Amino acid sequence: MKAVAMPTVSRVAVCGGTHGNELAGIYLVREMLKKRADGTEPVSVVTVMSNSRAAQLCVRYVETDLNRCFTRAALSAPVSETSPYEMIRSQELNALLGPKASAQAVDLLCDLHNTTANTGLCLITYSDHDWICLHICKHLQAQMASTPVRYVHFDIPLNEAYSLDSVGKHGFAMEIGPQPHGVVRSAIFSAMQEGVQLMMDWICQFNSGMLFEGGWVDVYTMVKNIDYPRDSETHVITAAVHPDLQDRDFCLLHPGDPMFLCFSGETLRYRGKEALYPFFINEGAYYEKGVALSLARKRRVQIPSVPAVSRSPAGGTNGCS
Amino acid sequence: MKAVAMPTVSRVAVCGGTHGNELAGIYLVREMLKKRADGTEPVSVVTVMSNSRAAQLCVRYVETDLNRCFTRAALSAPVSETSPYEMIRSQELNALLGPKASAQAVDLLCDLHNTTANTGLCLITYSDHDWICLHICKHLQAQMASTPVRYVHFDIPLNEAYSLDSVGKHGFAMEIGPQPHGVVRSAIFSAMQEGVQLMMDWICQFNSGMLFEGGWVDVYTMVKNIDYPRDSETHVITAAVHPDLQDRDFCLLHPGDPMFLCFSGETLRYRGKEALYPFFINEGAYYEKGVALSLARKRRVQIPSVPAVSRSPAGGTNGCS
Repeated sequence: MKAVAMPTVSRVAVCGGTHGNELAGIYLVREMLKKRADGTEPVSVVTVMSNSRAAQLCVRYVETDLNRCFTRAALSAPVSETSPYEMIRSQELNALLGPKASAQAVDLLCDLHNTTANTGLCLITYSDHDWICLHICKHLQAQMASTPVRYVHFDIPLNEAYSLDSVGKHGFAMEIGPQPHGVVRSAIFSAMQEGVQLMMDWICQFNSGMLFEGGWVDVYTMVKNIDYPRDSETHVITAAVHPDLQDRDFCLLHPGDPMFLCFSGETLRYRGKEALYPFFINEGAYYEKGVALSLARKRRVQIPSVPAVSRSPAGGTNGCS
Repeated sequence: MKAVAMPTVSRVAVCGGTHGNELAGIYLVREMLKKRADGTEPVSVVTVMSNSRAAQLCVRYVETDLNRCFTRAALSAPVSETSPYEMIRSQELNALLGPKASAQAVDLLCDLHNTTANTGLCLITYSDHDWICLHICKHLQAQMASTPVRYVHFDIPLNEAYSLDSVGKHGFAMEIGPQPHGVVRSAIFSAMQEGVQLMMDWICQFNSGMLFEGGWVDVYTMVKNIDYPRDSETHVITAAVHPDLQDRDFCLLHPGDPMFLCFSGETLRYRGKEALYPFFINEGAYYEKGVALSLARKRRVQIPSVPAVSRSPAGGTNGCS
């Protein structure tokens, strides 16, 4: 595969607290902000607490899910003082880190998230051919000893891409689980810290002209969501994820495999025709969204080597300490 | 040890949703209420959704923690329409299931809870010599194959006992973890269902005159709480529970053992002089209460055999199907 020259990644945003009860990202951003105040942080990194009101209350959001407010429609909607707080905040963040799909947007936006599902570390993106994101994923896969790292792809056009990471020229959610919402687990915090550090290492080396070889990365493309069984009248759920499926994110689910165990004792099985990879299994925040798990198709994607070229003719610092 | 005759346990309350985001108890109570409507539930069981408003919103509480509103002072405080919802609700529940410390109170109150801590199943009580509660614990320990069962004792006078279970003549919180709040895990639901069923089995057999032998039960008496390290100005936590301590509830903690890992990387150690048993390690709801973990002293308590005597001279049904 031919090498593809890519512009350097000079301006990086690391965001936490987009969901105010996903604590590893919140404490990591607070730690990074302290270091920046100490003058020890690379100058090109913008560190942002995305939804500090929700973080203060330790809730996912105050009025509406901030991480669904970054579609082109939401970002261009008129807002007033009476608009939901997160609708206003998404436009503030777009002004700070974007505007989305513009030359002024940050080169890379990494948004830190946690899930109650046993996902390990996922980079969640809207592209299956973003060589920068794929190379960072490959780097993390090679360097992180104790955490499985996977690349998840939501096949949605950029206009409709709804999450904060879609504001950057490149971007992903760095999602790590399992961790209960409202709780910070030291091992999850450390994995996130390591993931961000490895991302920064890769960017610095890439900017410095190091040539990263191409290769292959497994890409999990989201196919569909599956809801909990619910009472037809009350819509209350009538089953939990089956114990044989619980915690088995990214383990192939075959037609006929147990999927739910009803509270009444009955087992319900996966009735699809195609074996697929489940993820976000029993994520706490998705009960209200009608998602018990998502299913993905896996394929190997070949990525080229990516020699860096300066974005500006003047070249200048690579922004790393 | 001499046998101690005990009155039969004719009126039992099983409560869930005292905390509205502890889902196993909520779905178990809903399941039990369905069965009661079918006429298949033992008549002597009152099943209660304690805080249905909080359960509807999937939050721990709406205005104040319901499970701190059952002290004598709270139950006798004047309330009006403007009082916090849970202050009003605690008095309603006291009228329904108590009054606390009266002859009219239910014989046994089992209040279902979940924790993010890796506690297994705990019966949490205010007495280390309640033979009924201790016998039920011993029965569960003998019968539950896959779940560790422990007896936890809070040494607080009944007037100051703050939780719903203190309203019954006998009572305990049945606390099961680990489970994230706002999530129901099938294995935790099943363990709770089994625990409640085994409790009912014991009560039915006891009421029927079966003689349960005495023996010994380990009792964990709460000694003190330990808070997270916090920033002296902002009070924001500066460390998570150390990975060596996380999930090791009821494993003896020795002086000098790692306790916290600061976000900055420093390890903080347990500085007490006495080896004690940690529990509620990193419980999500206790961040706001300033509790990172609790520490208990363990001792073996001898319990007598407890032949049943009818509460009423007329005898009558034992209330079990």
